[in-house]
Amino acid sequence: MININSHFSLPHVEAEQLTNNIGNTVKIHGIIYKIREMSGFAFVILKTKRSLLQCVYSEEYSKFKISELCDNMSVVFTGEVISDERSRTGIQVRLISFECLSAPAQETPVVINNKEIVTSFETMFDYRPITLRNNKERAIFQIQAGICRGLRKFFDENRFTEIHSPKIVFSGAEGGANIFKLDYFGREAYLTQSPQFYKQIMVGVFERVYEIAPVFRAEKHDTSRHINEYTSVDLEMGFIESFYDIMKLEIKMLAEIFALLREYYAGELALLKVNMPEITEIPEMTFTESKEMIAEIYKREIIDFEDFDPEEEKLLCEIIKKKTGCDFVFVTHYKSSKRPFYTMDSRENTEVTESFDLLFRGMEITTGGQRIHDYQSQIAKMENRGMNTEEFSSYLMAHKYGLPPHGGLGLGLERFTAKLLGYQNVRYATMFPRDINRLEP
Amino acid sequence: MININSHFSLPHVEAEQLTNNIGNTVKIHGIIYKIREMSGFAFVILKTKRSLLQCVYSEEYSKFKISELCDNMSVVFTGEVISDERSRTGIQVRLISFECLSAPAQETPVVINNKEIVTSFETMFDYRPITLRNNKERAIFQIQAGICRGLRKFFDENRFTEIHSPKIVFSGAEGGANIFKLDYFGREAYLTQSPQFYKQIMVGVFERVYEIAPVFRAEKHDTSRHINEYTSVDLEMGFIESFYDIMKLEIKMLAEIFALLREYYAGELALLKVNMPEITEIPEMTFTESKEMIAEIYKREIIDFEDFDPEEEKLLCEIIKKKTGCDFVFVTHYKSSKRPFYTMDSRENTEVTESFDLLFRGMEITTGGQRIHDYQSQIAKMENRGMNTEEFSSYLMAHKYGLPPHGGLGLGLERFTAKLLGYQNVRYATMFPRDINRLEP
Repeated sequence: MININSHFSLPHVEAEQLTNNIGNTVKIHGIIYKIREMSGFAFVILKTKRSLLQCVYSEEYSKFKISELCDNMSVVFTGEVISDERSRTGIQVRLISFECLSAPAQETPVVINNKEIVTSFETMFDYRPITLRNNKERAIFQIQAGICRGLRKFFDENRFTEIHSPKIVFSGAEGGANIFKLDYFGREAYLTQSPQFYKQIMVGVFERVYEIAPVFRAEKHDTSRHINEYTSVDLEMGFIESFYDIMKLEIKMLAEIFALLREYYAGELALLKVNMPEITEIPEMTFTESKEMIAEIYKREIIDFEDFDPEEEKLLCEIIKKKTGCDFVFVTHYKSSKRPFYTMDSRENTEVTESFDLLFRGMEITTGGQRIHDYQSQIAKMENRGMNTEEFSSYLMAHKYGLPPHGGLGLGLERFTAKLLGYQNVRYATMFPRDINRLEP
Repeated sequence: MININSHFSLPHVEAEQLTNNIGNTVKIHGIIYKIREMSGFAFVILKTKRSLLQCVYSEEYSKFKISELCDNMSVVFTGEVISDERSRTGIQVRLISFECLSAPAQETPVVINNKEIVTSFETMFDYRPITLRNNKERAIFQIQAGICRGLRKFFDENRFTEIHSPKIVFSGAEGGANIFKLDYFGREAYLTQSPQFYKQIMVGVFERVYEIAPVFRAEKHDTSRHINEYTSVDLEMGFIESFYDIMKLEIKMLAEIFALLREYYAGELALLKVNMPEITEIPEMTFTESKEMIAEIYKREIIDFEDFDPEEEKLLCEIIKKKTGCDFVFVTHYKSSKRPFYTMDSRENTEVTESFDLLFRGMEITTGGQRIHDYQSQIAKMENRGMNTEEFSSYLMAHKYGLPPHGGLGLGLERFTAKLLGYQNVRYATMFPRDINRLEP
């Protein structure tokens, strides 16, 4: 009556094992990506987990008709592995027989098996469940998965503990109107804009924490830089001497990501022709210096003295690239008026903050800085801003009962992926984007 | 003007490095956990990232007054590392001097530095930002982080690709009333109950995918088994022969988690006196067999022929434990009427499904099974249930344009952690639980 299971074992050969199987007859499974018929023979491209495998059909040795196969059919091929110097993998498979496991009901309405998907922006995202099947499209998200692997490797090595903070919250971390409201059993609740409060609280528990999780911003403007739900990479660490420690940590973190991508995602990087940045150092300058430099070099009048507009972020990156060759720039000491209430003001000039942004190829990808750890200072700053500290009493418990000096950062995963891969619109690096017009698929 | 940062380096010694520093004077930082004053000397317990470090103050060699220190103060200690056979770490630190980096504003209203926190359930969670600082409480979440590390190691080794699916969705995967509604720029949207649709879609892209992310269930009942937001470990894989492949995979996955915990979390496991299950095999039986066996052995009348009640899950686990010694049991072939529309019915008996639950120490922690991959079969099952297939057209694109046979599972991270550590209430394994009564902290 009670059966015992043995351990799981793969029934078929993996694509990567084929080079060790030259001359052997193997079974390999996958989804047919493309069929190119020639006279008397055909190339059948099989999509496996991460690569495309060239198989060859021939009337001579294949024991079926090529017309029995079609695009998007899930199959198990039996074939002989032969070496082929012309193919990128060095091998191909001569098809002997096949087993059809699942056939599509229809042909795709969009051509998804060319090098690029040539279609409108709307069609690309309306048909996302199938446009993602394109080999280049899916490579974007392999690299994104690789970025997360690199991040977690870095966090593990540097003794950060992963946390899972709630996404339904009782108050917004950043404040403002950009917050989704929710009926929570008759109470008003919100979707989190950031795990800020929780990661600060958890510094008192684990000293160093991280979370890679969704955050939600109800921003109404429809730009190439914004989506309403994105994946935020958040870290927070105690016992820093200043916010420069966080910047130094981020350089090390980025270097680790790039090293891991080079090691394990070389195929995808080559496919997408990714221009990988060199990173051993990142230039830094203050917000005010940056503003003045952009104004001077590009003969622009400074209108907003408190923030960049997107154009200025682009121009600053161009200047830095030209001067130093670096694709990144840290901008420090943003105005206090423009930073949230938990940001620490500079001691020398309380109108600016111990904070930074990291710009990458023309776009802000990280916001970070040192936070206020002292209870009285935090209360004072909130009261100065006219905030009701009562509403934040559970967050402020962390400060009241002792928190070390600490700081952290948030990195937008989709923005980072987009800029790394050279996309102007963050949606191309988002599996299923959410914006003011799009809630589906 | 443009400064270049050097790489980040730790300023102080880590707790784990101390055993290599016997006889040396070191600087070490942390938060004071507890001070035990004796006559003429004192033990000062310093909380570091994962452990408690015993330091010794003495009027003789410490160049400060013990009254200058207090609980929850963030400090850098300078001291001499000496070997101490009585302490668990084999060393202690003789304090010479200290630097206070941050002092608490008040003493904690709950005693958090004893072996256990002795307080009411409500107080435990009302003061969560500080009760989590207790060394045993925080060990729960170190182990939870370790479970995630084990999971990701397993997924990487078995070629699963991590995905990030949206949490704001246009329709519920599981259907039913247990869904949070949201105003999305004037449209009605929902919080996801499961990444089910997206992981199935992504099988057509990567063959094997996983996600560890929040899901939301608006269940109104307040039980020890339910919270309204939890972390779901989801995997989905293509080219399975049957749902037994998923069960075999889960055994391997659990074994990998336990191996990683034993290797890297021995301290936490010992502290919490965790009874680690042996897992090489897991017994399995059908839902109907299970129902009948429970009824027979415990002389209970079967009232609900379609589902277990929580008591039955407990009894079944007791029976299996007694018969086989195993803490787990797979229950298979749940009734079709009780499983979602995407579940594959058994060929031999279409009233039951190719599905399973995994019960662990009396509680269901996993639901899984084979899904329908054929478009016409999926449409037919939905129409049989009176569903409007139009509403699901973007999900059904995956089927229409070809999906391999596939299946997967969802594992509740908090439930699994709770049962592993021996907690009856899942909230104890949830950092900041959300339930019908609790939205804060």
